Amino acid sequence: MQAVGICGSDVHYWKRGCIGDFVVRAPMILGHESAGKVVKLGPNVKHLKEGDRVTIEPGVPCRRCDFCKSGRYNLCADVQFLATPPVHGSISKYHTHAADFCFKLPDHVSYEEGAFCEPLGVGVHACRRAGVTVGSKVFITGADISQSRLDFAKSMGADSVFLADNDPQKTAKIIEQKFGCMPNISIECTGAESCIQSVIYHLEVLLCILVGLGKPLAQLPVVNAAVREVDIRGVFRYVNCYPAALSLIASGRIQVKPLITHRFDLQEAVKAFEMAESGEAIKVMIHCGRDAKD
Amino acid sequence: MQAVGICGSDVHYWKRGCIGDFVVRAPMILGHESAGKVVKLGPNVKHLKEGDRVTIEPGVPCRRCDFCKSGRYNLCADVQFLATPPVHGSISKYHTHAADFCFKLPDHVSYEEGAFCEPLGVGVHACRRAGVTVGSKVFITGADISQSRLDFAKSMGADSVFLADNDPQKTAKIIEQKFGCMPNISIECTGAESCIQSVIYHLEVLLCILVGLGKPLAQLPVVNAAVREVDIRGVFRYVNCYPAALSLIASGRIQVKPLITHRFDLQEAVKAFEMAESGEAIKVMIHCGRDAKD
Amino acid sequence: MQAVGICGSDVHYWKRGCIGDFVVRAPMILGHESAGKVVKLGPNVKHLKEGDRVTIEPGVPCRRCDFCKSGRYNLCADVQFLATPPVHGSISKYHTHAADFCFKLPDHVSYEEGAFCEPLGVGVHACRRAGVTVGSKVFITGADISQSRLDFAKSMGADSVFLADNDPQKTAKIIEQKFGCMPNISIECTGAESCIQSVIYHLEVLLCILVGLGKPLAQLPVVNAAVREVDIRGVFRYVNCYPAALSLIASGRIQVKPLITHRFDLQEAVKAFEMAESGEAIKVMIHCGRDAKD
Amino acid sequence: MQAVGICGSDVHYWKRGCIGDFVVRAPMILGHESAGKVVKLGPNVKHLKEGDRVTIEPGVPCRRCDFCKSGRYNLCADVQFLATPPVHGSISKYHTHAADFCFKLPDHVSYEEGAFCEPLGVGVHACRRAGVTVGSKVFITGADISQSRLDFAKSMGADSVFLADNDPQKTAKIIEQKFGCMPNISIECTGAESCIQSVIYHLEVLLCILVGLGKPLAQLPVVNAAVREVDIRGVFRYVNCYPAALSLIASGRIQVKPLITHRFDLQEAVKAFEMAESGEAIKVMIHCGRDAKD
Repeated sequence: MQAVGICGSDVHYWKRGCIGDFVVRAPMILGHESAGKVVKLGPNVKHLKEGDRVTIEPGVPCRRCDFCKSGRYNLCADVQFLATPPVHGSISKYHTHAADFCFKLPDHVSYEEGAFCEPLGVGVHACRRAGVTVGSKVFITGADISQSRLDFAKSMGADSVFLADNDPQKTAKIIEQKFGCMPNISIECTGAESCIQSVIYHLEVLLCILVGLGKPLAQLPVVNAAVREVDIRGVFRYVNCYPAALSLIASGRIQVKPLITHRFDLQEAVKAFEMAESGEAIKVMIHCGRDAKD
Repeated sequence: MQAVGICGSDVHYWKRGCIGDFVVRAPMILGHESAGKVVKLGPNVKHLKEGDRVTIEPGVPCRRCDFCKSGRYNLCADVQFLATPPVHGSISKYHTHAADFCFKLPDHVSYEEGAFCEPLGVGVHACRRAGVTVGSKVFITGADISQSRLDFAKSMGADSVFLADNDPQKTAKIIEQKFGCMPNISIECTGAESCIQSVIYHLEVLLCILVGLGKPLAQLPVVNAAVREVDIRGVFRYVNCYPAALSLIASGRIQVKPLITHRFDLQEAVKAFEMAESGEAIKVMIHCGRDAKD
Repeated sequence: MQAVGICGSDVHYWKRGCIGDFVVRAPMILGHESAGKVVKLGPNVKHLKEGDRVTIEPGVPCRRCDFCKSGRYNLCADVQFLATPPVHGSISKYHTHAADFCFKLPDHVSYEEGAFCEPLGVGVHACRRAGVTVGSKVFITGADISQSRLDFAKSMGADSVFLADNDPQKTAKIIEQKFGCMPNISIECTGAESCIQSVIYHLEVLLCILVGLGKPLAQLPVVNAAVREVDIRGVFRYVNCYPAALSLIASGRIQVKPLITHRFDLQEAVKAFEMAESGEAIKVMIHCGRDAKD
Repeated sequence: MQAVGICGSDVHYWKRGCIGDFVVRAPMILGHESAGKVVKLGPNVKHLKEGDRVTIEPGVPCRRCDFCKSGRYNLCADVQFLATPPVHGSISKYHTHAADFCFKLPDHVSYEEGAFCEPLGVGVHACRRAGVTVGSKVFITGADISQSRLDFAKSMGADSVFLADNDPQKTAKIIEQKFGCMPNISIECTGAESCIQSVIYHLEVLLCILVGLGKPLAQLPVVNAAVREVDIRGVFRYVNCYPAALSLIASGRIQVKPLITHRFDLQEAVKAFEMAESGEAIKVMIHCGRDAKD
């Protein structure tokens, strides 16, 4: 392994020992946003060779259930997902992985960028579930109560950003003034009940994609959503998104380097987790191998 | 006009004077499930002629907004919908209607059956929104707390029916035993919060279609729905569904006659509404013209 | 194995030794429409048990390529498909098969009906690729130059049938008279150039599904298709269609028994192939096991 | 009217007097890529006011046929399309148009850019019909036999360009080398039979969009397309694409100004058409009003 990013879920397992029904019952290696170098290949692997630099999609499904066979392997109940108990993660020197879930990095893409395909894959999947295409008007909630995060989002390519107002009707007015139109797609990344309600009630979206996870139960304006035929769709991880995520990074369309704010060697892993927990960092990377900076 | 069916919304306006924001502020004719005979044509109408027997799609949209132009005219904000204040309904001797919202009845389809295209259109739209196709496994909630309604549903073509158990996990088990598999589509017609929750939680549906309308806000298991990527889609009226509804009736695939339990002449309209309100009837028809029985 | 149907491709390999690039270079067992009884299970198989009666989906894909992972395993380049050289078929006493491509037959479904899931699966896939749903108006070409086949199609559930006229404009008129409307979907099963052309030119279809295969190159009215936005979609085998095909048979919605016109024991396999080649039979079944009639 | 672009079809009507079945039988004004200033409004128009600068979508459909009501008004048989006989075009001082087919230009978008929404709309529609989204790998044929046009395409944002080789297998190899993968979508803009064949045969596309129009009949590899399930979809004009096209221009995502190579006043219209016919220009604009440069 070379570069492995720390995710909020890694921190959660570290501090709490569980996420929902997934309980850590034995010592477990963390990490699932990872890239490394191929040192050995299985006998039938043809698309890779020793020395190849690869990014690793962390969930290997059963390949046999209805979900796997119908192209939705992210919903496979028997998936082996890195750093989800009892499966070990990838913050380690060596890791064995199914070859078809390893994707070769172009020479100019770094290991860190390769590792970033994981969180970016969630975004790709959300956009696909939403059918985002040319001319889509997309409203994203999630960074909207922090001016500095908004500024960062703007610098990364958002057409326009603004602090959400507590009064959702005011928010709707701001949107109309800023864009001259209402969005038709909303990607909801806060998980906050008030925010989901507000998106459905006050915007003219036809589609609300839920990425953020909050309380198990939320009061939703179901009648309003039904009579306006606002579809509500969830997003779970990603499926067949690594090639697209990698290509977005490789082509320069999406710049992930500015999001990597801290780096630690494998020996300093505890410090890395402390930094990730602090909330000061955007993305913390752990360098597991000597070539991690390549 | 010949045959006009009474809908729950007609009864609601009659007794309460409003539905949500729609308030009856002046005397208003009721009725929107209607069929009649063409007595006069506009100068440009080519697909109909005098004497044609037609069923009438009750909502005529603006034809100019984004919804109308993109094939979702059921969401048009400026639709003129029969018996929705301030637009008069069709329980009358004569009614003028946009010709392209009148559909010619084959000779062997009665006026009453023609009027039935309206409620059937809602079902057609729900099936289309759900993508019901060959091999779909559809679970419908709505008649599931009344054995007599269940028996009727069974006689009308349901593969299997059963009384819902208060314990949704038991319900899930019953389904698995009865069908040997879990449904992949649910069409929720009760509007009850507990029922929506139960469908999402305990069944392996990928799609939950909301037809029934209950409380404006309902507690939904959003996290569960999101991580299993259960889409939640509402249904509002119908769009481009009259031809399909009519064809289902004309071909005999769907028998609506057994659903028509009571008939009244126009002069007895009050009695007809009293019967509709009583809950004893399935569908009450009012005969506005002398040929209503044809 | 118990019942195995003979397909046109089996006959083709028998008489010609090849289909396109697939050449039989060593003795090869034929047969891929098959049902049998489980006599032994792999260690991880949970959904089946010894003695279960199953239908067998004949193509087992690689499970690792992009097609497999995106739900289109029928397009997998490395599929192992029964009786496609160099893979042996299933006309034999015993056959080993991937468990997730074996589907348990309900008690009341016979082995012969189980074997019929294979050709029926092609029809299911064509309907899915066409998006056939409630209200679809489907025009199927294929039996349309033989009155006896047309009569049979009618007895099996076709709404209306007629002999195609050499003049496609006449055919269009016949359709309009018979149905009162033009089809919006065409399923083309002849593979004949003239027939494909005629469907695109003269019918108001929005979608033409190619099931029949004829000459490698065909003159298509591409400009006409383009400006009318008639989609042309091919169909290759089936994907995730066995459960639906089996359910259509099990529920009685589709009756396949009348299609099985001849039966032979395994010892009479050559006679069975001669009958299949003669053109007199609709479907010939070979009984490989003693319980084949169950 | 202010700015009106000249299209190949305008030149064709001018020189030949017809396009297919559309024959110019009386003097007819040309032009359908147009933008102008509102001088008078119909009584019910609310989204525009006098003085607004607008781009004009040239085809106004009947609003009543099945195509119009199902969101595919580009297929309406009764559309009134500017400069398609017998409907006059917009190269004139004044023109009356349906208000909902006029779209307000933001202040910073020029009339010429507004007029450019028309050809850009065709591209938007092609991308939508192709489902182009994040991660799509799109191969466009059309400029591929002229190095200067390829260079221009590259400067406009194409990731990579190359001269097509006469040997389609070589072309396939070039693509694989340049991109490290095969495209999954092809947008075919030449209309040349050899080109359509080559795209279907040699590339691993799943979808071939036909934009270019060539001979009415073309030899297509239907069997190859069918067994690989390559969908073939045509594109006719555009539907609901003006807002997206305008937004792409307004946001600066697409720069159309470099494509406008020549400008003429209304009085010099004949010279403008001569230039458009010469093949030297990319886009010729006619300035009909005194504010055309705004």
